[in-house]
Amino acid sequence: RMIQEAAMSFSETLLMPNAAEWDEKKHFPKDVIKEAADYGFAGIYVKEDVGGVNLGRKEASLIFEALSTGCVGTSAYISIHNMCAWMIDVYGNEDQRQKYLPSMTTFDLFGSYCLTEPNSGSDAIAMKSTAEDKGDYFLLNGEKAFISGAGDSDVFLVMAKTGEKEISCLIVDGDTEGLKFGKNETKMGWNVQPTRAVIFEDCKIPKENLLGSRGQGFKIAMSGLDGGRVNIASCSLGGAAFCLDTATEYIKTRKQFGKPLANFQYLQFKLAQMATDLEASRLMVRNAADMIDQNSEEKTMYC
Amino acid sequence: RMIQEAAMSFSETLLMPNAAEWDEKKHFPKDVIKEAADYGFAGIYVKEDVGGVNLGRKEASLIFEALSTGCVGTSAYISIHNMCAWMIDVYGNEDQRQKYLPSMTTFDLFGSYCLTEPNSGSDAIAMKSTAEDKGDYFLLNGEKAFISGAGDSDVFLVMAKTGEKEISCLIVDGDTEGLKFGKNETKMGWNVQPTRAVIFEDCKIPKENLLGSRGQGFKIAMSGLDGGRVNIASCSLGGAAFCLDTATEYIKTRKQFGKPLANFQYLQFKLAQMATDLEASRLMVRNAADMIDQNSEEKTMYC
Amino acid sequence: RMIQEAAMSFSETLLMPNAAEWDEKKHFPKDVIKEAADYGFAGIYVKEDVGGVNLGRKEASLIFEALSTGCVGTSAYISIHNMCAWMIDVYGNEDQRQKYLPSMTTFDLFGSYCLTEPNSGSDAIAMKSTAEDKGDYFLLNGEKAFISGAGDSDVFLVMAKTGEKEISCLIVDGDTEGLKFGKNETKMGWNVQPTRAVIFEDCKIPKENLLGSRGQGFKIAMSGLDGGRVNIASCSLGGAAFCLDTATEYIKTRKQFGKPLANFQYLQFKLAQMATDLEASRLMVRNAADMIDQNSEEKTMYC
Amino acid sequence: RMIQEAAMSFSETLLMPNAAEWDEKKHFPKDVIKEAADYGFAGIYVKEDVGGVNLGRKEASLIFEALSTGCVGTSAYISIHNMCAWMIDVYGNEDQRQKYLPSMTTFDLFGSYCLTEPNSGSDAIAMKSTAEDKGDYFLLNGEKAFISGAGDSDVFLVMAKTGEKEISCLIVDGDTEGLKFGKNETKMGWNVQPTRAVIFEDCKIPKENLLGSRGQGFKIAMSGLDGGRVNIASCSLGGAAFCLDTATEYIKTRKQFGKPLANFQYLQFKLAQMATDLEASRLMVRNAADMIDQNSEEKTMYC
Ligand SMILES: Cc1cc2nc3c(=O)[nH]c(=O)nc-3n(C[C@H](O)[C@H](O)[C@H](O)COP(=O)(O)OP(=O)(O)OC[C@H]3O[C@@H](n4cnc5c(N)ncnc54)[C@H](O)[C@@H]3O)c2cc1C
Ligand SMILES: Cc1cc2nc3c(=O)[nH]c(=O)nc-3n(C[C@H](O)[C@H](O)[C@H](O)COP(=O)(O)OP(=O)(O)OC[C@H]3O[C@@H](n4cnc5c(N)ncnc54)[C@H](O)[C@@H]3O)c2cc1C
Ligand SMILES: Cc1cc2nc3c(=O)[nH]c(=O)nc-3n(C[C@H](O)[C@H](O)[C@H](O)COP(=O)(O)OP(=O)(O)OC[C@H]3O[C@@H](n4cnc5c(N)ncnc54)[C@H](O)[C@@H]3O)c2cc1C
Ligand SMILES: Cc1cc2nc3c(=O)[nH]c(=O)nc-3n(C[C@H](O)[C@H](O)[C@H](O)COP(=O)(O)OP(=O)(O)OC[C@H]3O[C@@H](n4cnc5c(N)ncnc54)[C@H](O)[C@@H]3O)c2cc1C
Repeated sequence: RMIQEAAMSFSETLLMPNAAEWDEKKHFPKDVIKEAADYGFAGIYVKEDVGGVNLGRKEASLIFEALSTGCVGTSAYISIHNMCAWMIDVYGNEDQRQKYLPSMTTFDLFGSYCLTEPNSGSDAIAMKSTAEDKGDYFLLNGEKAFISGAGDSDVFLVMAKTGEKEISCLIVDGDTEGLKFGKNETKMGWNVQPTRAVIFEDCKIPKENLLGSRGQGFKIAMSGLDGGRVNIASCSLGGAAFCLDTATEYIKTRKQFGKPLANFQYLQFKLAQMATDLEASRLMVRNAADMIDQNSEEKTMYC
Repeated sequence: RMIQEAAMSFSETLLMPNAAEWDEKKHFPKDVIKEAADYGFAGIYVKEDVGGVNLGRKEASLIFEALSTGCVGTSAYISIHNMCAWMIDVYGNEDQRQKYLPSMTTFDLFGSYCLTEPNSGSDAIAMKSTAEDKGDYFLLNGEKAFISGAGDSDVFLVMAKTGEKEISCLIVDGDTEGLKFGKNETKMGWNVQPTRAVIFEDCKIPKENLLGSRGQGFKIAMSGLDGGRVNIASCSLGGAAFCLDTATEYIKTRKQFGKPLANFQYLQFKLAQMATDLEASRLMVRNAADMIDQNSEEKTMYC
Repeated sequence: RMIQEAAMSFSETLLMPNAAEWDEKKHFPKDVIKEAADYGFAGIYVKEDVGGVNLGRKEASLIFEALSTGCVGTSAYISIHNMCAWMIDVYGNEDQRQKYLPSMTTFDLFGSYCLTEPNSGSDAIAMKSTAEDKGDYFLLNGEKAFISGAGDSDVFLVMAKTGEKEISCLIVDGDTEGLKFGKNETKMGWNVQPTRAVIFEDCKIPKENLLGSRGQGFKIAMSGLDGGRVNIASCSLGGAAFCLDTATEYIKTRKQFGKPLANFQYLQFKLAQMATDLEASRLMVRNAADMIDQNSEEKTMYC
Repeated sequence: RMIQEAAMSFSETLLMPNAAEWDEKKHFPKDVIKEAADYGFAGIYVKEDVGGVNLGRKEASLIFEALSTGCVGTSAYISIHNMCAWMIDVYGNEDQRQKYLPSMTTFDLFGSYCLTEPNSGSDAIAMKSTAEDKGDYFLLNGEKAFISGAGDSDVFLVMAKTGEKEISCLIVDGDTEGLKFGKNETKMGWNVQPTRAVIFEDCKIPKENLLGSRGQGFKIAMSGLDGGRVNIASCSLGGAAFCLDTATEYIKTRKQFGKPLANFQYLQFKLAQMATDLEASRLMVRNAADMIDQNSEEKTMYC
C-alpha cells in the first residue's frame, strides 16, 4: 500500500535518525510533525472536505506502525491528534468541523485529549472536573493529568461534569483564560512528547464549543479510545518490529566463540519466538482495526 | 458460513456426546466418520468432479475447529484424510484421481499419510524405507511409525527412497501383500484414533501408483504438511475453545465463599487472558490458511 | 542421609518398576506400602514410643521426594497417612495415641484425612457435615469428597460441625456402622490411590474419639495441612526430578540430524531452565519444611 | 544478624534518599562509599589482619541485598570492589596483601576488575590484551570494555595474555603511565557507577604485580566471578525487594473505583506471585553463597 510506504520513508528519513537525540533532550519535534501533514497523517481517518484522507482504521494501523519504527513517542502523539480530529469530525456540528479540522489536518493546530485526572485513571468515570452551565458559557474548573502534548498543543477535548451524573465533552482553545499546565512529567521513555497536567481555573467555554450533546461526553470519550487503543498498540508494534530487526541484524554481525551469534540455535529459537509473538500481536491489532471499520457490535471487546 | 454451522451441529450431535466414551474404549468411530462425508467433510478442498466440495483452507480451518469442539482426535484424523485426498487431487494423474477420490470423498476409503519412521521424525528426510525399481513395480521395504488411522485405513501415501537421494511418494492399497501393522500406541489422549507402525515387507507397488514424478516425494510430503499443520492447529483451537467454554460455564455455577467463582476477579482475568491467547492463536491459524489459499511465497513460514 | 538412601532404594526396587502398571490397572499397592513401614515411612515424624522415627519435616521432605521418583501417587498417599498419624500424635490424648499409632506406624491401619466436601473445597470452613452431641456419642452425618485412600483405609480423621460455628475433629473407625463410600473418581493420574466420597449416615462416634477439644477441629485440620502441602509438594519434586532425568537421558540417546538431540543448544538450554526451576522449587519446599521444624511464626505463609 | 541491620540502616540513611538524584546526575558517590568502609563493607570476606571482617559469602549476600534496597548501582560497585580485594587476599603473596589490602579495606583505594574486551564478552577466554615479558616488567597492551568504576578507581586486576595460550592476572596501579579511559557508557540504569573502556598503551607493569602464578589468570578470574555472580544477584534481590515493597505500599494507598487498589484480587495475586518469585530467587542466591562457603565441588554450577 502506497501510504504505508510513504509512512515508512517519512519514518526512516525524518524520525529514525533523530529519535535518540530528541528523546535525550526531551525535544518535541513540532516542525517534523507538521511535515507529516503533507502526507495526510494529520487526518488519516477524517473526511476529505476538511482536509482528511478518509482512510480506514486498518490503514491507520499500518501507518502508525510504520511511523513508530522511527520514533514511538512522536507517532503516539500523532495518533492522539488523529483521534481528536476524528472525534470532532464525527461528533462535531458543521461549524465545529469547519472551524477546527482544516487547521488540524494540516497540523496548524495540535490536538490533545483530556480525560484522565489525578484520582481518576482506570476509573475514568469518577472524574471531578466540572463545567457549570452559566447561561451563555460553561465555567470549567478542575485538573486533568498525564495529558499528551499539553503545553505545546492548541485544541483540547475535555471531558467534564455538566451535572451530577452528566459528563460532557468540550472543545477548549489553547488561549482560553485560566488554562494552565503542570511540569513535564518524568518518564522512562516517550520523552519526545510532553506529558503534563492541565489545570482549568474558571475557564469560560462558549456554549458552541460543546461537542455532541450534553451528557454524551463519556460515550464520545470511550468511542475515541476504542480506536485510540488500536493506534497506541500499532505504535508498539512498530517499536517492537524495530527492536526485533535491530537484534536480528546484531546477532548476524556480533561474533563470539569464533562465529556470529546468529549461528547459536538458542538465539535463533529465541528470535523466532519473538517474531511469532509480534506477528500474533499484529494480527490482533489489525483484527481490532477491522472491527471498528466494520462497526462490529463486539468491537470494544477486541480493542 | 453455512458449512461451519453444519460442522458445529454435526459435532454437537454426533461427536460431543460420545467423545469421552470413545476415548476411554479406544474406539475409532468409523461409522460416524462415514456420516461426515454427507456434509462434504471427506473432501473439503478436493475438486468437485471427484466428489469434493472445493472450498478454501480458511473454510477448512473453520470446519476442523468446529468439529474438534466435539472430539479433537476424530477431527484430527478427518483432517489427515483430507490432506491425503488433496495430495492425490493435486499431484495425481487423472487415473489416480478417478480411482481413489470418488471413494475417498465418501469415506468409503480411509486415507493415511506415511512419512515418519522410528529414526526419522523431525529429520524426515533421513528416512530409510526403500522402493526399489523392479521394472514393472516398486519393491517397498521399511517401517513407518506413528501412522494415524493405520490398521483401519485403506489407502496409504508412503514416502520412500527410490534412489540414493531420491524420495518418491507411492499410493499403497490396504490389501497389498506384505503390509503389516504394529500395535496401537499408548497415548495420553487422541485415543479415538489408532496410531500404529506400518511395516512393508517386500510389498510390490505397481508403477502406476507413483504419485507425481520420481524424486518429487519430499516436496509432495512437505506441501501436504503445510496445510496439515494448519489443520491440526485448527483442531487444537476447537479443543481449546471447548475447554474455555466449559471452564467459563463452570465458574458461573460453582460456588465457593458464598458466591459463584466467576465473581472472583483473579479468575475473571485468568479466563480473559486465556480467551485472548486463544483468539491470537485463531488469527495466526486463519492467517496461515489464507496464505495457502493465496499461494503466498511465504506460506511455509506462516504454517 | 541414610534414610534418604533407603527411600531411594525402596523407590527404585519396589515402586518404579511397577508404577506404570499400577496406574493403568488402578491398583492400590497396599502390600508394598506395608513394607514401607519397615523403613519407618509410616510414622516419619511421629514419636518413637508409638513406633515412629521422630524425624523432622526436612527429612520427611527428602523421603517423600525420594519415594515419589518411583511413584508419585503411592508416595502422596503415604504422606497423607503420615499427616494423619502426626495429628493423632500431637493432638491426641494418651489413650488415642496408644490405641491407633502403634498400628498406624506399621501400616496395619491406613489413615485418611476428611476435610473436603462437595460444596466446600477452597472454602473448607463452609462444611456442612454435622456431629450432633447425643450425650455419650456424636451422631455424624454428611458427605466428604475426594478422600484419598477411602474404601481401603481404616482410620478417618473427620472434620465436622459440633455446633453452629464449631468445628471438631473426630477419629472414625473403618467399621463404623453407617459409613459408606462413593465410586472411585476418574482422574488423569494418581490412579494408584483410590479417591472416593465418604458418606456418613447416622454414624455413632464414641465421645472418646474426639481429637483435641471441641471447636479445635479447624485449627487441627489446618495445622495438619501446613505439613501436608509441604509433603505433596515434595512428592511433586520427586515426580519432576524423575521426568527431568528421563528427558535428559533420552536426548543423550535419541539421534536426529545425525547426532544426539543433546547436541542441540536449544534443548540444552531448555533442560537447564527446567533444572533451575526444579532446584528453585526444591529450595522453597525445604525452606517451608524448615520453618515448620523451627515452628516459625510465619510458617503458614511459606507452606 | 547485626551487620545486616547495619547495612540496612546505612542503606536507608545514606543511599535511599540520594539514589534517584545520583542516577540522574550520573554521580559516583565516592565519599558515601568511603563511609561504608567504617562498617566493614570494603572487605567483607577479606581476612582480618589486613582490615577485613572475614565473614562468609552468605553474610555478604545479606549485606549486598540490604545495601541495594537503597541503591543497586552503588552496591554493585561495592560488591565488585569486594571481589577484587578477595582475589588479592586469596591469590596474592604477603607483599601484595600488605601493600593493597589495608587501603582497600578502608576504601582509600577503589578496585576494578578487568576481564571483558570489546570482542570478548561471554567468550572471555578469547581476549586479545597482551602482557609481554620484558625481563623485569610486563609490557601491557590492549583494551578492556565495560569496566565498572573505571576512571575513578585506583587498583585494576587485569587479565591479559602472557603467552599464546597463557592468561595471567596483573595488578595495575591507577597512576601507571599509558593507562587511559574511554567515555562513560550510556546505560539505562546503574548510572551512579561509571562504566568505561580501559586502554593500556605500553604500560610497564612490575613483575611483582603478577597475581598468583603465570597462566593462573583465567582460573583466578573465574573463581572471582563465582562469588561475583552471587554478589550481583544479591544486589538484584535488594532492588526487587524495594520495588515490591513500594508497589505493595502504593496499592494500599492509591484508590480507584472507590477503594484501595489492594482490595482488588487480581492485584493481590499478582503481588503474591512476585513475592513468591522473589523468595525463590533469594533462596537460590543464598544456596549458591552457601556452596562457596562450603567450597562445594558443584559450586560453579549453582553460581
Ligand atoms: C505517557 C502517558 C501519556 C498519557 N496521555 C494521556 C492523554 O493524552 N490523555 C489522557 O486522558 N490520559 C493520558 N494518560 C493517562 C492514562 O490514560 C492513564 O494512565 C490510565 O488510564 C491509567 O490510569 P492511572 O495511571 O491513574 O492508573 P490507575 O488507574 O491508578 O491504575 C494503577 C494500576 O492498577 C490497576 N488497576 C486499576 N483498577 C483496577 C481494578 N479495578 N482491578 C485490578 N487492577 C486495577 C491498573 O491496571 C494499573 O496497573 C497518559 C498516561 C501516560 C503514562
Ligand atoms: C498421535 C500422533 C499421530 C501421528 N500421526 C502421524 C501420521 O499420520 N503420519 C506421519 O507420518 N507421522 C505421524 N506422527 C509422527 C509425527 O509427525 C512425529 O512425531 C514428529 O515428526 C516428531 O518426530 P519424533 O516423534 O521422532 O520426535 P524427534 O524428531 O525425535 O524430536 C524429539 C524432540 O526433539 C526436538 N528436536 C528434534 N530435532 C531438533 C533440533 N535439530 N533442534 C532442537 N530440537 C530438536 C523436537 O522438537 C522434539 O521436541 C504422529 C505422531 C503422533 C504423536
Ligand atoms: C486427587 C485428589 C485427592 C484429594 N485428597 C483429599 C483428601 O484426602 N482429603 C481431603 O479432605 N481432600 C482431598 N482432596 C480435595 C482437595 O483438597 C480439594 O480439591 C481442594 O481443596 C480444592 O477444592 P475444590 O476441588 O472444591 O475446588 P474449588 O474450591 O471449587 O476451586 C476451583 C478453582 O477455583 C479457585 N478458587 C476457589 N476459590 C477462589 C477464590 N476465592 N478466588 C480465586 N480463585 C478461587 C481454585 O483455586 C480452583 O482453581 C483431594 C483432591 C484431589 C484432586
Ligand atoms: C553495567 C556493566 C558493568 C560491567 N562491569 C564489568 C566489569 O567491571 N568488569 C568486566 O570485566 N566486565 C564488566 N562488564 C561486562 C560483562 O561482563 C559483559 O557484558 C558480559 O560478559 C557479556 O558480554 P557481552 O556484553 O560482550 O555480550 P556477548 O558475549 O556479545 O553476548 C550477547 C548476547 O548473546 C548471548 N550469547 C553469547 N554467546 C552465546 C552462545 N554461545 N550461545 C547462546 N547465546 C550466546 C549472550 O547471552 C547475550 O545475550 C560489565 C557490563 C555491564 C553492562
